[in-house]
Amino acid sequence: MKMTDLFTKTSKTVPGDETARNAQLLIQAGFIHKEMAGVYAYLPLGLRVLENIKTIVREEMDAIGGQEVMMTALQPRELWEKTNRWDDAVVDNWFKTKLKNGTELGVGLSHEEPLVNALGGYVNSYKDLPVLVYQIQTKFRNELRAQAGLLRGREFIMKDMYSFARTQAEHEELYERVAAAYSRVYDRLGIGDVTYRTAADGGYFTTRFSDEYQTLSDIGEDTIYVDEAKKLAINKEVYTDENLQKLGLNKADLVEKRSVEVGNIFPLETKYTDALDVYYVDEAGERHSIIMGCYGIGVSRLVGMLAEHFSDERGLVWPENVAPFRVYLATIGVSDAVVKQAEELHSLLTEKNVSVLYDNRDVRAGEKFADADLMGMPHRIVISDKTVAAGVYEYKHRMSTESQQLSQGDVMKLLGV
Amino acid sequence: MKMTDLFTKTSKTVPGDETARNAQLLIQAGFIHKEMAGVYAYLPLGLRVLENIKTIVREEMDAIGGQEVMMTALQPRELWEKTNRWDDAVVDNWFKTKLKNGTELGVGLSHEEPLVNALGGYVNSYKDLPVLVYQIQTKFRNELRAQAGLLRGREFIMKDMYSFARTQAEHEELYERVAAAYSRVYDRLGIGDVTYRTAADGGYFTTRFSDEYQTLSDIGEDTIYVDEAKKLAINKEVYTDENLQKLGLNKADLVEKRSVEVGNIFPLETKYTDALDVYYVDEAGERHSIIMGCYGIGVSRLVGMLAEHFSDERGLVWPENVAPFRVYLATIGVSDAVVKQAEELHSLLTEKNVSVLYDNRDVRAGEKFADADLMGMPHRIVISDKTVAAGVYEYKHRMSTESQQLSQGDVMKLLGV
Repeated sequence: MKMTDLFTKTSKTVPGDETARNAQLLIQAGFIHKEMAGVYAYLPLGLRVLENIKTIVREEMDAIGGQEVMMTALQPRELWEKTNRWDDAVVDNWFKTKLKNGTELGVGLSHEEPLVNALGGYVNSYKDLPVLVYQIQTKFRNELRAQAGLLRGREFIMKDMYSFARTQAEHEELYERVAAAYSRVYDRLGIGDVTYRTAADGGYFTTRFSDEYQTLSDIGEDTIYVDEAKKLAINKEVYTDENLQKLGLNKADLVEKRSVEVGNIFPLETKYTDALDVYYVDEAGERHSIIMGCYGIGVSRLVGMLAEHFSDERGLVWPENVAPFRVYLATIGVSDAVVKQAEELHSLLTEKNVSVLYDNRDVRAGEKFADADLMGMPHRIVISDKTVAAGVYEYKHRMSTESQQLSQGDVMKLLGV
Repeated sequence: MKMTDLFTKTSKTVPGDETARNAQLLIQAGFIHKEMAGVYAYLPLGLRVLENIKTIVREEMDAIGGQEVMMTALQPRELWEKTNRWDDAVVDNWFKTKLKNGTELGVGLSHEEPLVNALGGYVNSYKDLPVLVYQIQTKFRNELRAQAGLLRGREFIMKDMYSFARTQAEHEELYERVAAAYSRVYDRLGIGDVTYRTAADGGYFTTRFSDEYQTLSDIGEDTIYVDEAKKLAINKEVYTDENLQKLGLNKADLVEKRSVEVGNIFPLETKYTDALDVYYVDEAGERHSIIMGCYGIGVSRLVGMLAEHFSDERGLVWPENVAPFRVYLATIGVSDAVVKQAEELHSLLTEKNVSVLYDNRDVRAGEKFADADLMGMPHRIVISDKTVAAGVYEYKHRMSTESQQLSQGDVMKLLGV
């Protein structure tokens, strides 16, 4: 894509109403637009990041047998009354609205109820189970405060998956299958090394732990105790001697860290399936409860988390897998030879499925380099009269400080094409 | 995908609360789930159709230079007051909600205001124009009645594009560019032959026509007059002698038809850009208004429209480009030879990127055939002891009544692989 075809621009001004580094950077780089606190629109570059993350999540959920659906934002009251989650005194972050006839509706903050209810129309025999269903969809939560940029939104994108099992053993197999897929997601996003499966409170209807996926970060709201060798952690909220013993963790091996929750997986027991009257019948004709698990990944939160984690004083530093474009190609000067070579390289890379943001603007080199650093594509290639004369490209990785003179062959090798 | 891995099932019962054929069929085939009137969730098969339509729309919008964004559902009141579209007395189908502090918010029924406002942060020089921006996103409209299935939703998916031009001539070039892309979209969806560009009322702030894309259908709410030779039509609402003359249409050539609006394109003049204070400065430093166009395609409505148009008394008949799977592969009997050949064909087709719904259930042939017809994949392949013995496949296209005995090579040829 040509930079002159992109309507967004970078800005040198740090937005005055943002305290979170992720929102500051993403707004300055033209990736997102703030609609109000906790509500952000995705501009072309930001949407590409979001879609790249969605693709990774979707591929991993499909790979373990997840069936994708899309539930609705508008929610009928009756469904949530059955699980006692309608009343604002019980669930305090609903957005609610009304039909013309006065009927109150909820604006989906989660989807256990509608998902279980829809599934109930199809599942009734032991032959119909187990099932893994997921969606990647917008959630609405009426948070009192929302000042962490994309880390805590009032409107945000989440992947939520639900498992339905016949037995505790089957549930645990599904649970661990999803856990393994979660590790692959964080690995592919480039934060596997700083993301820990973390034992946490299971909520009020189970004595089991839930598992959070916590990414180490100074801006985190959570405190966790990390066993780096075992690649496990325990959340401060359940940090007791008894729990450490249950988990096989040793106080001496643990280090206290701040972290951001980028995913969680929960045993839901039979709370929702029982409440919504969804059972299965076994081979002998006997009715049984269905054991459910719930698995979330904060997809838009990850945009923010990656912006926090992969950035420096000059701007964003996207990992290869989520960068809006892999290559930032810039011309210096407007001579025919420079433009011709740049257009050719742009076409060649595009043909080879390497995404390129081609900075064809007639602005000075310093401005292009500053923008390249702020927007954070992994590979920067510069073409100038000097490089044309020398028969090379000027190449720099966003993470290095020095540029190199490379042949076209070497550049292609670096890009893996 | 194996049928036993799909949680949905077909149903012989016509849902009692649906009068629209599209909703009846899509619910019976397990494609969608009704949450409430005008609000439908997409189950795995329905989501695949929706995504296929989105992909076609996205490809055509990208091809004409459209930049994709994603605005938000939650909308601040102030923005809409600037264009006088907040007041329920003016716009009567808002869903509204409230922040904890009592601040009223809108739930996005359209996105001209936020889009123009976001763009205003970037566009101010003649060099920044023209721009084409679009999104594919959920809209919420508080309709009094919603009984046409996916044809009129309270929560639905729309593609909305906006053009921004410096001059009327530039605006018209963009407008026609989008119009041409719209024709390609409907052609690829298989309804090009029954979809007419239709002159309609331009709304209260322009003397120009708008253009609707109307698909002929007996269930349509619109009446249009069609010139089949010119492939043009005029909406009854503007059907006057004066307008026919303006459009170069001849009463004698026109046939009255019922139709469903599947898209529309509107000249918005400078209404929104002026109201939201978004101007551009020319080379001489002079300020000018920006001329805007607006272009909608009802993406989820198209799921319903295609279900209406491509169906018969036995069920859905998906066109190749939008079918959830291209092939319905069914076994008859459970002998090792049958299962082995079916698994092999399933793998082979999947390798060749032909999507397959593999009906591996142990149910009788009649039930499989009825389900195949109801769900409507284009190609049905049956493997039985008889076909294995004869070294052939039993093949039937959803549109034909007779099956044929074909070699593997012939089947592959039919599938274009």
